[in-house]
Amino acid sequence: MTTRLIGGDWGTSNLRVFRYVEGGEVAEVRTAPTGVMAVAAGGFEAALKALVADWLEGGAPVLLCGMVGSRQGWIEAPYAACPADMPAVTAKAVRAPCDFAEVHILPGLSVVHPDGPHDVLRGEETQIFGALDPDRRAQLIVTPGTHSKWAVAGEGRVSGFSTYMTGELFAVLKAHSILGRLMEGEAHDADAFALGVRRAKADPALSRLLFSVRAEGLFDAIAPTALAAYLSGLLIGAEVTSGLAAASAAEVAGGVTLIGEPALTELYGQALAIAGATDVNRVSGEAAVGAGLWRLAGALGLIR
Amino acid sequence: MTTRLIGGDWGTSNLRVFRYVEGGEVAEVRTAPTGVMAVAAGGFEAALKALVADWLEGGAPVLLCGMVGSRQGWIEAPYAACPADMPAVTAKAVRAPCDFAEVHILPGLSVVHPDGPHDVLRGEETQIFGALDPDRRAQLIVTPGTHSKWAVAGEGRVSGFSTYMTGELFAVLKAHSILGRLMEGEAHDADAFALGVRRAKADPALSRLLFSVRAEGLFDAIAPTALAAYLSGLLIGAEVTSGLAAASAAEVAGGVTLIGEPALTELYGQALAIAGATDVNRVSGEAAVGAGLWRLAGALGLIR
Repeated sequence: MTTRLIGGDWGTSNLRVFRYVEGGEVAEVRTAPTGVMAVAAGGFEAALKALVADWLEGGAPVLLCGMVGSRQGWIEAPYAACPADMPAVTAKAVRAPCDFAEVHILPGLSVVHPDGPHDVLRGEETQIFGALDPDRRAQLIVTPGTHSKWAVAGEGRVSGFSTYMTGELFAVLKAHSILGRLMEGEAHDADAFALGVRRAKADPALSRLLFSVRAEGLFDAIAPTALAAYLSGLLIGAEVTSGLAAASAAEVAGGVTLIGEPALTELYGQALAIAGATDVNRVSGEAAVGAGLWRLAGALGLIR
Repeated sequence: MTTRLIGGDWGTSNLRVFRYVEGGEVAEVRTAPTGVMAVAAGGFEAALKALVADWLEGGAPVLLCGMVGSRQGWIEAPYAACPADMPAVTAKAVRAPCDFAEVHILPGLSVVHPDGPHDVLRGEETQIFGALDPDRRAQLIVTPGTHSKWAVAGEGRVSGFSTYMTGELFAVLKAHSILGRLMEGEAHDADAFALGVRRAKADPALSRLLFSVRAEGLFDAIAPTALAAYLSGLLIGAEVTSGLAAASAAEVAGGVTLIGEPALTELYGQALAIAGATDVNRVSGEAAVGAGLWRLAGALGLIR
């Protein structure tokens, strides 16, 4: 079937491309390790062509999201400010210089929190628009990971979001702090994880809770093989407790959509259940970004 | 004047010794880089003698505190459980094998928090007993640092304490996380520090606040040269907000004593003022541990 659109999720580490046919059906997906960090300035056109050369016949347009639109990417697409619906996002899309195709790059989103600080995301906006239910009045959309994003969306618009450094905190504390010293192995421990979530729910002081990873280990209250899962529970527990507390009752009641790898969204689902959120559904990151690129291509007028 | 006691604060990195004469006056202080990590098993006796050989004439007893009493030290002195007064601490002191002097090693303190986790300290107990006012009904004693301790004390007893990983979090995040990438220089910035403290006071979600170090840098809302001070403000602000919130009104009203390096206790004093604590006094770490060793030597019956 004829290629109607080539979509690309071009992040720091990887480039994943989608070939869409009539009706937005994804006919093929390919992934390459040619992330933005691995591509030298001036090399983006060639890196894209290397992956999609045989899809170009017919002249389908290309829509890209992710770090490819950052200052270190192909061309910078400045952030769209929240609240933002799909037309507000596509209005900030930027045309990239390319000899063999019409290439558009989507912007990220920015927000200024009521208490002051800025926040940003790039790439997740496409997952969010791919996963949100445009008819729902309010819902929470969460992309767990290195830097988890909690977005509030409703009626097709992202009204705001917050970033939690959960995944990076876990990795840095495990590798470089005293907390990693007593840990043994990588296996998950469901009880220790749940204990961490419950303690984080009861005490908002994360920098105090963190030291308990060491003290519980010293007293053999938690086994060395379970300490990493306990730390994970503390960090994810702190995130979901804060994320739910910051949302309105209507937003929580509208349901929480988790986007990401199944193993990670499963953990977040357990933490959300302990924190009291029951209406939770899970979507893979690939499915969400695939749907989002098609929807945003429509908003940009690329689907003819 | 005759040496009545030799005191030693023997931590991970350094050994600091005090020569006391009549009435507890400190006649001399010496410091060596022979911390517990630098001394091989079996080498503690020689490391001590190298620093105090000329003080030994007259047979004064030796009292040591700190990591020298840990499993990695000279001999293990198990923790004394809170609530603990000076007799409860000295009851757990351990006699170290030594050919040239009578050597006692003090234990650390342990506590089990109401919500479950254990907590421990070692070395700070001596600073705390050195700084506390035994006649006051309640007071807070704080030792800022890599692992800050917040102790609640009253009528000569430490009723409990909490550890905040503030200093280690700062160091690890600056050196190993994305937050350090935009930072330039080590200079302090008072405005950025105060902004961080205020934001931490307003929002208990530390893992969300941390990402603002990056976002504020990306938007030039905070200069690269001020980002480290902003991160410091967020972390110290989160600590003092939680520490004051966990204390009773009577404990806060009883005053906060900060023990440590003047540059650090000055910062904590500023953060406490923003957080609303006004009765704050500051004591150097050396003065506090020096006073504590003399007091605890008295409780142990070493001052004859």
